Amino acid sequence: MRTDMGYYAIGVDLGGTNLRIAAVDESGKLLSKTELETGVALGREHVIDDLCRATEAMKAKYEGVAELCGIGVGVPGLIDSESGRLLESPNLPGWSNYDVKGDIERRLGTSVILENDANAAALGEQWLGAGRNVESMCMYTLGTGVGGGLVLNGKIWRGWNGMAGELGHCNVEPDGHPCNCGSHGCLEQYASATAVVRMAREALATGADTQVRTNADEELTARIVYECAMRGDIVAKQVFERVGRALGLAIADMVNTLNLPLYVIGGGVSSAWDAFSPALFDEVRQRSFVYAGTTSRDGMGVGGRQRTTRITPAMLGGDGGLYGAARLPMSQAAVTSKV
Amino acid sequence: MRTDMGYYAIGVDLGGTNLRIAAVDESGKLLSKTELETGVALGREHVIDDLCRATEAMKAKYEGVAELCGIGVGVPGLIDSESGRLLESPNLPGWSNYDVKGDIERRLGTSVILENDANAAALGEQWLGAGRNVESMCMYTLGTGVGGGLVLNGKIWRGWNGMAGELGHCNVEPDGHPCNCGSHGCLEQYASATAVVRMAREALATGADTQVRTNADEELTARIVYECAMRGDIVAKQVFERVGRALGLAIADMVNTLNLPLYVIGGGVSSAWDAFSPALFDEVRQRSFVYAGTTSRDGMGVGGRQRTTRITPAMLGGDGGLYGAARLPMSQAAVTSKV
Repeated sequence: MRTDMGYYAIGVDLGGTNLRIAAVDESGKLLSKTELETGVALGREHVIDDLCRATEAMKAKYEGVAELCGIGVGVPGLIDSESGRLLESPNLPGWSNYDVKGDIERRLGTSVILENDANAAALGEQWLGAGRNVESMCMYTLGTGVGGGLVLNGKIWRGWNGMAGELGHCNVEPDGHPCNCGSHGCLEQYASATAVVRMAREALATGADTQVRTNADEELTARIVYECAMRGDIVAKQVFERVGRALGLAIADMVNTLNLPLYVIGGGVSSAWDAFSPALFDEVRQRSFVYAGTTSRDGMGVGGRQRTTRITPAMLGGDGGLYGAARLPMSQAAVTSKV
Repeated sequence: MRTDMGYYAIGVDLGGTNLRIAAVDESGKLLSKTELETGVALGREHVIDDLCRATEAMKAKYEGVAELCGIGVGVPGLIDSESGRLLESPNLPGWSNYDVKGDIERRLGTSVILENDANAAALGEQWLGAGRNVESMCMYTLGTGVGGGLVLNGKIWRGWNGMAGELGHCNVEPDGHPCNCGSHGCLEQYASATAVVRMAREALATGADTQVRTNADEELTARIVYECAMRGDIVAKQVFERVGRALGLAIADMVNTLNLPLYVIGGGVSSAWDAFSPALFDEVRQRSFVYAGTTSRDGMGVGGRQRTTRITPAMLGGDGGLYGAARLPMSQAAVTSKV
């Protein structure tokens, strides 16, 4: 029997630290949210148990009230889109080559959509955040590493086997700092929280005149470096200028390649926007004639129409990935490029 | 009255040197081809006159024999996709901000589809050449400059205002050789015919021990440098190694970003494939874990299925752009990303 019940979806953001589950309706309204610690140390069985139990509880809550249209799960790491296996995840040690999707589906008795967390965050921002007026955008998530996600014509671009959007591994310095991926000078080595701390430490090691100091038992963080930069510390400011230049170079390449209307910067380091964005814009302007040609001070580009290429901070904070995960079953948004 | 006549399209490749027009049927069979010199020096009026006259003649030839489904025109330069104006074209001086599409349409009394020539070449290769088994690919055209084109899910990706695919301006050396676009170290400065000659001249200027020489009245060309490399000249070989490294770095970024199944190298310089491809593959392998993860010697990647990321020379030679232009009206392939 058809009812007049509205639809909702359950989104799961399975992070290395927190496991968050939300029920979101079709309009993007948050119906309810649960947050647990991810018991990574207790093993993946335990984590998936927690995840399934909380999802079942969420589902029970809306039984007869709204109709569940599906479950989307965002996870950190490389996903093989055909098999649903998590190939590799630095934040979930011991989960390599694990069939996350199959395991959750067996326990819940229903199909789920698995997605890389940075892709989910991009979809969330495009649905309800900085990208809600565009069909296509890309997002950089600056956290411990640098993640990325592409939304093209309203759908996540996963590439032909789900590995697209690894924007943290675009090159910004061919002979630069070695990266875990095997290359040198990846964006991640200059624009992640880890990189901010490393660059500050490198400056400290040269004996530079800086207030970037910590007590013996306090760990140096990107936040401390940011606060120093905001107080005018030259060395800390230079660190964020490097963040901005690296991001600007990577975004300029993206503008020249994909000519998207919007580039969104999210993740923890994006809160240092004031410190890195001037260098970012300067670099993009110099490096991309497509950007320069589609941007002017009054927001009018070539041809006199409103067509400024926008680069902005994310709007949904840490919730982008959660909303994006919920959006997955609604939009059937994740399509794979056919070969 | 419906007839049993087959469909065909007319493709026009309007280059700075040659103007070529072809009638191509739905299956990709070439029905006929006309080639003229582009009378650039005589002005754009003259060139468009030639173009329209030859197109009318081609059309008359198939009147009553096959049904014309449309006309596609490939031109070098930046096109504003909304207005159909050629914003800028180094090879067609004096054509800046000229309404090429509108002018041809007025003279022919029918609508035409205007497309950047490198985009058209990518579509041609995807239809009938190296990409005929894939839905998505990108192509680098190494000529006087470096052009690029992206085909995503069978359609040219033009971006939100038609400027996508400027792959020659992706950065491979942040502090590298200045580029006409205003940046430094663009791919075009290392992988075009112009760059091959420049890099060889730079080596000559240092007094390097090389056979790369020309008589006083012979102009140094990329072909001469290539022939020297094939004869074992170290300096000439190093020039092409730089070509390969630059291309490899750019393609690695593309693999990490878009995870496409195929990357095609076309244009005149691509005939030096033997000289530059070893460095190219070496660089991509080192720079892209996505490439490494989807490529193995037996063509089997992660998960045991046939899923090798391919990087190959173009197959249609100089005709890719012509076939691609003819394909445009057939596939209505050129879609613009909505904003």
